[in-house]
Amino acid sequence: MTLTLEMVKEAQSRIGSHIIKTPLLRAHALDALLGCEVHLKFENMQVTGAFKYRGAINKILKLSNEEKQRGIVTASSGNHGKAVAYGARELGIRATVVIPDTAPPFKVKAIEQLGAKIVYSSVTERFDVSERVAEENGYTLFHPYDDDDIMAGQGTMGLEIMDQHPSLDTVIVPTSGGGMLGGILTAMKESGSGISILGAEPAAIPRYSESLEHGERVKVESRRTIADALVSAQPGGRNFPVVQKYVDGMLKAEDASILKAMKMLLMEGRILAEPSAAVGLAAVLEDTYIPNSDEKVCFVISGGNVGFDQLRQLDDVSYVI
Amino acid sequence: MTLTLEMVKEAQSRIGSHIIKTPLLRAHALDALLGCEVHLKFENMQVTGAFKYRGAINKILKLSNEEKQRGIVTASSGNHGKAVAYGARELGIRATVVIPDTAPPFKVKAIEQLGAKIVYSSVTERFDVSERVAEENGYTLFHPYDDDDIMAGQGTMGLEIMDQHPSLDTVIVPTSGGGMLGGILTAMKESGSGISILGAEPAAIPRYSESLEHGERVKVESRRTIADALVSAQPGGRNFPVVQKYVDGMLKAEDASILKAMKMLLMEGRILAEPSAAVGLAAVLEDTYIPNSDEKVCFVISGGNVGFDQLRQLDDVSYVI
Repeated sequence: MTLTLEMVKEAQSRIGSHIIKTPLLRAHALDALLGCEVHLKFENMQVTGAFKYRGAINKILKLSNEEKQRGIVTASSGNHGKAVAYGARELGIRATVVIPDTAPPFKVKAIEQLGAKIVYSSVTERFDVSERVAEENGYTLFHPYDDDDIMAGQGTMGLEIMDQHPSLDTVIVPTSGGGMLGGILTAMKESGSGISILGAEPAAIPRYSESLEHGERVKVESRRTIADALVSAQPGGRNFPVVQKYVDGMLKAEDASILKAMKMLLMEGRILAEPSAAVGLAAVLEDTYIPNSDEKVCFVISGGNVGFDQLRQLDDVSYVI
Repeated sequence: MTLTLEMVKEAQSRIGSHIIKTPLLRAHALDALLGCEVHLKFENMQVTGAFKYRGAINKILKLSNEEKQRGIVTASSGNHGKAVAYGARELGIRATVVIPDTAPPFKVKAIEQLGAKIVYSSVTERFDVSERVAEENGYTLFHPYDDDDIMAGQGTMGLEIMDQHPSLDTVIVPTSGGGMLGGILTAMKESGSGISILGAEPAAIPRYSESLEHGERVKVESRRTIADALVSAQPGGRNFPVVQKYVDGMLKAEDASILKAMKMLLMEGRILAEPSAAVGLAAVLEDTYIPNSDEKVCFVISGGNVGFDQLRQLDDVSYVI
């Protein structure tokens, strides 16, 4: 089975009362800096502070009563784990989150505070560990992106974007495993929208750029990036075909540009985004993509879960207004 | 002449194409922290990053051609000066800004970058100095609040709020000289709105609380406050009668609470507000005002002009979620 528009629409009906229809707003203060008409989709204001809740709550709501009673498990570098833990608590379900040692401590703390059980693992073994935990305990496994229910939930953002601003020219989506990008592409392209949709990923882990070039899912080296939510080494098996079929292009950005974009969003746009959420703006700052000056570009601000100490990373970042 | 609803409506027509109709949005993440249904009016996303532009551009657009050719002067602790300088540049008018030594350096720099001439003065003498500069050069004096055109422009925010969310229960407005509060009160109360409107000021300089208690404009001691945009020692002569007639109450907040509110807005709400813009939330955190849990409270986030170094002041600020 492949993700369909119908599945995204069903997800929208299912999760509508559980999620926030986040604002899609103009950010005039950023126009000159990015060289286009800047629009932002504020998923940093979503429940649990990131788009991940859309997918997590969709899958949770689809569980049978028996599955709910047994419990759920997931592997996550932070935001997906928080979303699963929050959704589980909302419905009184036991949740375990396998956390890679690359996850920022404040994200781990947030998951613990929501009552989930934490299991630590290396970043490369996290999916194996979560599968083992699932088998041993009879838990339902929540993959963070390689899952049609997760993708359908995340794709609801695409329906919202078309509803909120149908005359956008371009949408730029932070990308890791490809759940959000695949979901948004399915929602918008299968609705017949002519809006161009681009993915953006850290240059340190260019799994989609490489995979699209090779025409198959490539596993790239897992290098460090400031974009701690975009660390998948390979596109998801269910996500890649969708992205390959529909995406209008992939952009890459270096960490230095990601920090610069994050600081611009904060100090000029007055919006707190986590580094991963700034990757699309960073790609435009690097001229990886050069929009026309009157192009209506919507950047998906995918999350806002930042530790206060992380702002120190912006101390020496400068830009010219 | 006293400010009237008609003057605010005329201002709205006059400045409509020059200002941003700023968003008024729910901030779910702050509900539990403030004990009410939180709505925010994002004037930190206004042109020049603060509500001040509404008044400045209204008065600039009303100048005669002769007045425009001679030039303008104002005294400002930052945001009003930036607004006047920006508006003057837009219309090709020469502007001088008298800056009190209490103004944050990054705000001064922003004014200089807009091409205005800077004159320094002590905070107590700033209005005298600006009057002298006006007389000596034939400039039109732009008082930051004690002026009907300024108040009318700032009052346009009240018309927007009623349009964007007519069923709010309460609006809380940061207050210094009383231009924004007077303008919003005139716009909303004279339109017959039943929404309760409260002012909020730093406890260090409680000029409105004291004046309302005494039934006349009291000049209070000019003490230091982190709320650098709310430093007027006395209500404005044209502002006070309007506030006295219509306001539903005045709130006060200590600097420690203002910093806490600013950090909550940033880390939970994902919004960068300057300290002065957080004074309303701070008052609610202090239980100076205790809203009902289902009360729809709109906090006017009056500005977002923060220097990055200022965020250091939040380092040791903590709160419990």
